[in-house]
Amino acid sequence: MPMDLTFLGTSAGMPTHWRNASGLAVQIRPGTGWYLVDCGEGTQRQVQRAGLSLHDLEAICISHVHGDHCYGLPGLLDSAGMLGRQKPLTLIAPAALWQWLQATHGLTDVQLPYTLEFVDVCTQPAVLERPGLRISSHELAHGVPCHAFRFEVQTSQRWLDSAALSALGLPPGPQWGALRRGEDVLFNNQWLHSRDYVQEQTERIVAVLGGDNAEPQRLRHACADAQLLVHEATFSRAALAHARFASGHSCAHDVAVFAQSVGLPNLVLTHFSQRHHSDAEQAALLHEAQAQYQGTVVLARDLQTWELAADGTLRHKADHPAQRNNA
Amino acid sequence: MPMDLTFLGTSAGMPTHWRNASGLAVQIRPGTGWYLVDCGEGTQRQVQRAGLSLHDLEAICISHVHGDHCYGLPGLLDSAGMLGRQKPLTLIAPAALWQWLQATHGLTDVQLPYTLEFVDVCTQPAVLERPGLRISSHELAHGVPCHAFRFEVQTSQRWLDSAALSALGLPPGPQWGALRRGEDVLFNNQWLHSRDYVQEQTERIVAVLGGDNAEPQRLRHACADAQLLVHEATFSRAALAHARFASGHSCAHDVAVFAQSVGLPNLVLTHFSQRHHSDAEQAALLHEAQAQYQGTVVLARDLQTWELAADGTLRHKADHPAQRNNA
Repeated sequence: MPMDLTFLGTSAGMPTHWRNASGLAVQIRPGTGWYLVDCGEGTQRQVQRAGLSLHDLEAICISHVHGDHCYGLPGLLDSAGMLGRQKPLTLIAPAALWQWLQATHGLTDVQLPYTLEFVDVCTQPAVLERPGLRISSHELAHGVPCHAFRFEVQTSQRWLDSAALSALGLPPGPQWGALRRGEDVLFNNQWLHSRDYVQEQTERIVAVLGGDNAEPQRLRHACADAQLLVHEATFSRAALAHARFASGHSCAHDVAVFAQSVGLPNLVLTHFSQRHHSDAEQAALLHEAQAQYQGTVVLARDLQTWELAADGTLRHKADHPAQRNNA
Repeated sequence: MPMDLTFLGTSAGMPTHWRNASGLAVQIRPGTGWYLVDCGEGTQRQVQRAGLSLHDLEAICISHVHGDHCYGLPGLLDSAGMLGRQKPLTLIAPAALWQWLQATHGLTDVQLPYTLEFVDVCTQPAVLERPGLRISSHELAHGVPCHAFRFEVQTSQRWLDSAALSALGLPPGPQWGALRRGEDVLFNNQWLHSRDYVQEQTERIVAVLGGDNAEPQRLRHACADAQLLVHEATFSRAALAHARFASGHSCAHDVAVFAQSVGLPNLVLTHFSQRHHSDAEQAALLHEAQAQYQGTVVLARDLQTWELAADGTLRHKADHPAQRNNA
């Protein structure tokens, strides 16, 4: 039951040739459904390039109302409708985002052919609960209300101690099924207790996916048992000290210090200012983080998929081509 | 004084791998300024790829409020601000688009560092007049108020008949300048009249750039003296007859019949439904148009620049790479 994270956009503020505005696809396997965290302009095209389907999108989480995190939303929702989506879609976002979407639909002549189910990110601690999945929101420090999303995935596997049952002389059949379901069974005048013949293993994956944030330590509680934090590192430490528009953002150094302090096994940095997009600047950011942090640290790139396993290992899984051959 | 047209997006409704939503850059040379007609989601990235600067953008014309023609506007305006633009920018659009932009800025925490000067496309016949350029709007037939934009560029060149002046014995100097400016000059007790020694040539380029439109004949008046029409051909004739969402759109056949009826020298078709994006379908659309039209017909492709000369010739000028090498 690994979790795949596909980075759809890793640039702060505005897109560049190689990096789109923010977007992150979360896919919990097995299963075809996926979740979108933030939806900057151009995200729908990145979704196509990553080979994801808007029919399989389960929910969208928007961290905050700044354009580089949400201006792709109206177009993506429209396109899902044009592609024939009818299944309701959950939108977890600030109330102002929902107001904006209503205004957008009213003023630009949109009627979606499916229902949007809005969840106010500010008023719900657990913003989504589905079998095996719990998403909660965690307030960050930014100029406007802004939240990180904690994805907690839990799967249980149960299996029968078939060797022990065969040794007792109980053949496979309906009584095996009853024991597996947790029922006790009478066999040869003896009660066989389900708990004695059923083993259960529970796997958990916890990933915290941040929005824009000037205070990584706000995520101390959310990260307590997490295997992964995805956090913005808009600037290097030196650039943050000098940045005119830095208010509300973090640098690689500070995020790494925080990750080390809570013993996180994996850290992915993203949302880079244009000044840090070159290979040399990326190498410097990585070095800045590694100097403070002993876990696995990765700088996100557009259209790259990383797989987080239940044992806490993070591995590079795929690079999606930015462009495909024409039909 | 040619006019360059760079197609930034040529897909109808939603973007695909190779075609973005609507956007068209118009550049009148010499000079660095350019004009944007429609601004679908992702246009700002296409602008980068085409090598255009948001500092040099003179005005934006939006044909109508449907998302594939305007959802890229808030992000593009933001980015111009982040890049340090301070020069005012003219926005020519329907009133509902302006309302949407105000709502967007209010709800998504935007303060642009430059002034947007709004011109209501519906209430102004000549929406922009600048020295040598006149843009007028022309109502189309679509589900919502929708307009085409007619760009009329006029340049005059004046030069002195220097051979005649030299033969008279008047040497180059201030008197040549006075004659060039239209002033008469006394020389050897004889009045030299500017009109006798100055020649003037005026060049005109007229291009009509359409939005979505079910009735090409609405542009009869606007196209009367045009050298070029850019018009949507969302569908083939057969597809239009069967399209469920076809209301408000044209097919290649009908646009070509219209262009032939007004004797247009050049026709560029764009805004293609996804079903017509393959090479085979594009060839079929071209054939459908050529069967009705004897002028030059071109199917627009993303990131291609076409040059329209004052003598009415249209030539393929450049293909911009969809992606550049990383820095």
